[in-house]
Amino acid sequence: MTGLPRLLLEPLIRGALLEDLGRAGDITTDALIPDTLMAEAAFVARQAGVVAGLDLAALGFALVDPEVRFTIALPDGSAVRPGDVIARLAGPARGILTGERVALNFLGHLSGIATATAAIATAIAHTKARVTCTRKTTPGLRAVEKYAVRCGGGANHRFGLDDAILIKDNHIALAGGIAAALTRARAAAGHLVKIEIEVDRLDQLAEVLKIGADVVLLDNMSPAMLREAVAMVAGRTITEASGGVTLQTAAAMAESGVDLISAGFLTHSAAVLDIGLDI
Amino acid sequence: MTGLPRLLLEPLIRGALLEDLGRAGDITTDALIPDTLMAEAAFVARQAGVVAGLDLAALGFALVDPEVRFTIALPDGSAVRPGDVIARLAGPARGILTGERVALNFLGHLSGIATATAAIATAIAHTKARVTCTRKTTPGLRAVEKYAVRCGGGANHRFGLDDAILIKDNHIALAGGIAAALTRARAAAGHLVKIEIEVDRLDQLAEVLKIGADVVLLDNMSPAMLREAVAMVAGRTITEASGGVTLQTAAAMAESGVDLISAGFLTHSAAVLDIGLDI
Amino acid sequence: MTGLPRLLLEPLIRGALLEDLGRAGDITTDALIPDTLMAEAAFVARQAGVVAGLDLAALGFALVDPEVRFTIALPDGSAVRPGDVIARLAGPARGILTGERVALNFLGHLSGIATATAAIATAIAHTKARVTCTRKTTPGLRAVEKYAVRCGGGANHRFGLDDAILIKDNHIALAGGIAAALTRARAAAGHLVKIEIEVDRLDQLAEVLKIGADVVLLDNMSPAMLREAVAMVAGRTITEASGGVTLQTAAAMAESGVDLISAGFLTHSAAVLDIGLDI
Amino acid sequence: MTGLPRLLLEPLIRGALLEDLGRAGDITTDALIPDTLMAEAAFVARQAGVVAGLDLAALGFALVDPEVRFTIALPDGSAVRPGDVIARLAGPARGILTGERVALNFLGHLSGIATATAAIATAIAHTKARVTCTRKTTPGLRAVEKYAVRCGGGANHRFGLDDAILIKDNHIALAGGIAAALTRARAAAGHLVKIEIEVDRLDQLAEVLKIGADVVLLDNMSPAMLREAVAMVAGRTITEASGGVTLQTAAAMAESGVDLISAGFLTHSAAVLDIGLDI
Amino acid sequence: MTGLPRLLLEPLIRGALLEDLGRAGDITTDALIPDTLMAEAAFVARQAGVVAGLDLAALGFALVDPEVRFTIALPDGSAVRPGDVIARLAGPARGILTGERVALNFLGHLSGIATATAAIATAIAHTKARVTCTRKTTPGLRAVEKYAVRCGGGANHRFGLDDAILIKDNHIALAGGIAAALTRARAAAGHLVKIEIEVDRLDQLAEVLKIGADVVLLDNMSPAMLREAVAMVAGRTITEASGGVTLQTAAAMAESGVDLISAGFLTHSAAVLDIGLDI
Amino acid sequence: MTGLPRLLLEPLIRGALLEDLGRAGDITTDALIPDTLMAEAAFVARQAGVVAGLDLAALGFALVDPEVRFTIALPDGSAVRPGDVIARLAGPARGILTGERVALNFLGHLSGIATATAAIATAIAHTKARVTCTRKTTPGLRAVEKYAVRCGGGANHRFGLDDAILIKDNHIALAGGIAAALTRARAAAGHLVKIEIEVDRLDQLAEVLKIGADVVLLDNMSPAMLREAVAMVAGRTITEASGGVTLQTAAAMAESGVDLISAGFLTHSAAVLDIGLDI
Repeated sequence: MTGLPRLLLEPLIRGALLEDLGRAGDITTDALIPDTLMAEAAFVARQAGVVAGLDLAALGFALVDPEVRFTIALPDGSAVRPGDVIARLAGPARGILTGERVALNFLGHLSGIATATAAIATAIAHTKARVTCTRKTTPGLRAVEKYAVRCGGGANHRFGLDDAILIKDNHIALAGGIAAALTRARAAAGHLVKIEIEVDRLDQLAEVLKIGADVVLLDNMSPAMLREAVAMVAGRTITEASGGVTLQTAAAMAESGVDLISAGFLTHSAAVLDIGLDI
Repeated sequence: MTGLPRLLLEPLIRGALLEDLGRAGDITTDALIPDTLMAEAAFVARQAGVVAGLDLAALGFALVDPEVRFTIALPDGSAVRPGDVIARLAGPARGILTGERVALNFLGHLSGIATATAAIATAIAHTKARVTCTRKTTPGLRAVEKYAVRCGGGANHRFGLDDAILIKDNHIALAGGIAAALTRARAAAGHLVKIEIEVDRLDQLAEVLKIGADVVLLDNMSPAMLREAVAMVAGRTITEASGGVTLQTAAAMAESGVDLISAGFLTHSAAVLDIGLDI
Repeated sequence: MTGLPRLLLEPLIRGALLEDLGRAGDITTDALIPDTLMAEAAFVARQAGVVAGLDLAALGFALVDPEVRFTIALPDGSAVRPGDVIARLAGPARGILTGERVALNFLGHLSGIATATAAIATAIAHTKARVTCTRKTTPGLRAVEKYAVRCGGGANHRFGLDDAILIKDNHIALAGGIAAALTRARAAAGHLVKIEIEVDRLDQLAEVLKIGADVVLLDNMSPAMLREAVAMVAGRTITEASGGVTLQTAAAMAESGVDLISAGFLTHSAAVLDIGLDI
Repeated sequence: MTGLPRLLLEPLIRGALLEDLGRAGDITTDALIPDTLMAEAAFVARQAGVVAGLDLAALGFALVDPEVRFTIALPDGSAVRPGDVIARLAGPARGILTGERVALNFLGHLSGIATATAAIATAIAHTKARVTCTRKTTPGLRAVEKYAVRCGGGANHRFGLDDAILIKDNHIALAGGIAAALTRARAAAGHLVKIEIEVDRLDQLAEVLKIGADVVLLDNMSPAMLREAVAMVAGRTITEASGGVTLQTAAAMAESGVDLISAGFLTHSAAVLDIGLDI
Repeated sequence: MTGLPRLLLEPLIRGALLEDLGRAGDITTDALIPDTLMAEAAFVARQAGVVAGLDLAALGFALVDPEVRFTIALPDGSAVRPGDVIARLAGPARGILTGERVALNFLGHLSGIATATAAIATAIAHTKARVTCTRKTTPGLRAVEKYAVRCGGGANHRFGLDDAILIKDNHIALAGGIAAALTRARAAAGHLVKIEIEVDRLDQLAEVLKIGADVVLLDNMSPAMLREAVAMVAGRTITEASGGVTLQTAAAMAESGVDLISAGFLTHSAAVLDIGLDI
Repeated sequence: MTGLPRLLLEPLIRGALLEDLGRAGDITTDALIPDTLMAEAAFVARQAGVVAGLDLAALGFALVDPEVRFTIALPDGSAVRPGDVIARLAGPARGILTGERVALNFLGHLSGIATATAAIATAIAHTKARVTCTRKTTPGLRAVEKYAVRCGGGANHRFGLDDAILIKDNHIALAGGIAAALTRARAAAGHLVKIEIEVDRLDQLAEVLKIGADVVLLDNMSPAMLREAVAMVAGRTITEASGGVTLQTAAAMAESGVDLISAGFLTHSAAVLDIGLDI
């Protein structure tokens, strides 16, 4: 995995550390642990999953105490089993203890997303479909959550309201129908901006295909209906299925022949991956 | 629920909106929806749960377009059933569409936490114990996540490393034992700072009780062992049970007589509460 | 023109005002002008051109003194002649004088860009081509400069390194050729990300067409060679011509049949549009 | 040239890089260029001019990838001819490609200002006058644009509304005349604050000279009238000529004997200096 | 007193409120005081002095709760006696209690500076000298502390290292003497930048007068020596006396005929003015 | 003394340096001192006191010029006599001169607070009482001022409105009495939050003791009355005396047997400790 630029990560990790250090710093560690004490520690997986977020963890310790050495054993995107050492730490005990929670909070959250993504990716690996995320992300963390989706083998959808046109049901209703919406979108879109439109019925799809769009979002359709939609499209546009994607339903949806299945839960409801720090 | 000051919320909602608006704003809505079109909309629960985060949602629309009126129907802390209207919106359609996702991301995330908290709170309502959160929060969102825990009927633990002393196993090991750790902590703590110490064995608890602490964290103990610990403490200190708290285990743990049970999953793994915006 | 969200504009205008107010504010106006003096003023074009940036000007006065009323006479995107009143101000004289320079700096700069864009747009209006900008923008002002290009009738290119893939000569060289570059790009690109590739020879273009790309950038080609390239492409991909675009060369380039001509000077070298404030 | 403190430059370069990296970073380079590939490159002048902004360019690469070495060949303030190597880069190809545009945007913009300044400075080199800038700067970039003016051999005017008193025509009108304005200004000005006043007629100048001012701004006067004004002043105050300064008019204005000629176009309308990065 | 622009004050008051509200807000007030309770309160002087900082106090309440009305009774710069009502508050009791301390911290600190300044100003009122501040200010508060000096009847010295040249003993030593220092300073200074130089002996003063400077700082001289220095200067330059200025020494120093006496203690050691909030 | 994390200090020192450097940097030093000149310097106490703030001073020079070496001779918390060298500097003369004032402003301010604290601590050293600070701090500097109090041997009170409940006279009045206030506070407080309540009469104290509180603040009581209060409390709660604490009154108040005496003047009115930089 190509990591994100440090410039994007640094404000996040600084914010998280300041949130935890508050106005007096780590008063427990400062009171109990001698300044000169050195320690070694390891981030160890307590659960199977896929790792994501090591650059954030490393940067966290670097900002708490640059003398803490952080060595990655299993880089972002690696599948881990319980007991696997993900990264090792060595240096001042104070720095390790003070930085531990923030590093784990990022690592667990992003690895949880990568793990959930990888589970869907595996479930649909026998199809041509890829799993993709949505804009249903945790406020403030979109860039790193989308990165975690990539670590888990998923693809990214829009990063925001500005980098693609996605015409949803409400837009269609308020714009006066599919034809009006697509026409206005085309007139407004720059040459590098793709247009996607959501439909939940096949007659809508037919109308879209008459006018054309880069991607069509097939929302809340059964696998059978998806199959029908894919046949109608016949390769003329990219197809994305959404609505009710779970580990149970993903395979059937993907087997319909769609190009993508998108799932909000990857970023808004994935449980943390349980990772511990053994000192 | 007393809400958080707008001063604390505003940077979060601004950050989330800028993250979503990117460098060109909502190009779909701007292209499709006439500037003058007005609309009405409602946030509707699609799932049973407890609401949290309405101030953030309201502030989000206020920052996108001050002409969008936001009326709360069921305030933070309310239990909702599928179909319940939580809040109503009226005003320029553009503002409603552009602000929708960020508002829902906050509302769903925080209501998910409140809902998970309320489930545990209900499960232990027949005991004297309260459920409390941890520092295992989503980076950047600690203050609002802890607020959501309160909305769900939970109590708050430390907000950071600086507002209470919490001596964990690693601290004890590196400080040279319980007695040394507690003595140093006492010498360092200001008169408004409480001291909590983690033990996972009863002989450790006995040692703690000899020296004294404001709170003792009973980690990874069975309900039976918790009961024994509570008997040993005999009201001399506050007791908190942690480790393996789930909706299944909470009641048995709470029935041991502890004052608090703490659970990281409330803030790090609660699924979003499904809320939709009907226009 | 749909304006940019106030959330995007506010940091820019605050930054510019703080830069001008320094540590003591407008010491001239504070010393000379009575607090109670009211005045009226008008932004007047001293040159023909196209206006852009009125929202920034209005926001500037609102932040300096909310009692200054700002009324737009000719909105962004309007063509103006010397003497035309663009906007009117009424309110405390101090606020008008203190906010004048920052408002004019934004208005002049962005109107200059809109004017330069409109000149090219007019020169190629008889062709199907549109003029587009580049990433050669003034640091910190990209979003508003791209907006000014739209005000002038131009289209927008990429907003940053992250919203489209643009494979330039250096990328091709370092990646080991056109085929390798396009193949890697396709594998990495999400379904909403377009791929553009730069070529400066027709044999390169042929290689690109074999593999396919969303847009091909025809760099530094003569009008004749552009015409040949357009013929080779035969509508299979969007064509963009760049290199040496000026008011003199634009028409000939556009007449080659390309879809777009792109020009860095719109944003990096357009002279300010001369606008004055008459009190 | 003494450069500006890194503390002033860092927020500008960080802002520009974040603006370009967006939410996913340089997706083209990340997809195409191997992590381990090293490259060498050179910033080469494609036009004659004066260089400014190398510290910003260097800092840009340092923030993108600290392993990119940046070596200055021709420091800020140097006159360059087409083909001259201004600086050399060596290190990871990815860092060079990702940082290129932001570095060039600063370098081209500031060198353009230095070049325009140097042209005027050369045109008036046979006189005692110096060329100076104004507050007509690009929002957010005033400090570095004023630095670029110094690189080009110019002098700096006020940096903001707070570091000198400059009484313009509107101030005079609203304050009730020259005498009232100057008297109030004197009463308000601290002992380190200079007072400058704008006049456009010789009778106004006579009134100013009766009361006294540190600098008098002779606005929109012909060379002949400037000469007359200089004779009237007879060395009692510093004289600055403004209005209609161009490469064509500068010499005649300067030959009038004024101390300074000021020109807004140096900072608001100078074309970029064409500099390329050869890899 | 002309206040400072709200744009300069807002970051200070936001920072102070966030510092006080921490991560959970005012937990005492939220727990104890009903949301609907209204109250009235008054800022009352408990000590004689001069008021400064009311805009900051007003803005503080506006940011905590816009429904709290803040009415100024005695504006900045007013002399107050114990018992005088400075400002009145009316509105939600919670907002008044939560905002109280931050408002008082600003008001007490700045009024303390204004009071100390006014004491010196009164002590030297029979001379032509004015009292002025230095750069020995509290980090982060320079702009408002210098404003408080003005409220107390003092004049302002430099605001920073960039708005005037002040050549101190170390500069003279490292630059190779007074002549070298003054010559280099003149060559570097823009036409709106004044040059001040520090001397502590009369032979140094003689050397300065030969070359010329805008202001001469007479450091650590006795009143007698100051008188001699003033005679030597004979009006050719502004004179400023510094070193050992106290309420006791100020009059004698000012009677020497200097134009200014400067005192660091105004901003770095003035005790707070005791102001209370009576509810 | 365990210092504060660099993450907390860096924004303060950056802010102070930017405040001093303004928009053009140190124009005196840049004009006069050769780039290559090296110098040595020492921070020397000119007064007896206790040092605090060396990390801020060191960080200041590191940010101005990383080549300036800063060596601490007497660490934070050390008692110094006039003439004692506190820290030594070696490196580029420019960096030393440019960074001097900001470093001294922090060092003097915080050492002043440490010194005032140490004076009270010494005066009450024969009692069991400790001196503690309040929330009457300088806006923006609370964390470092509380650290300075610790350097002087004092204890810290609340850091903000959020980390303990402190029920003051106004709260009691508006909440409807002591019993109501304490009851509501108990219901709201988390298990790690202490409750303190202010009383100024012994009958109030009796009422508090009936209900219980963690700390009781005995406000404005004479030493005799304090003694009586301590007897009433009989060790059941922590006692804090406040109101009128000075160097003169502290001993008598402490001898009453209270646990703490708190004094606002430590942070709001301590004079700077006079420290100079000898080059």
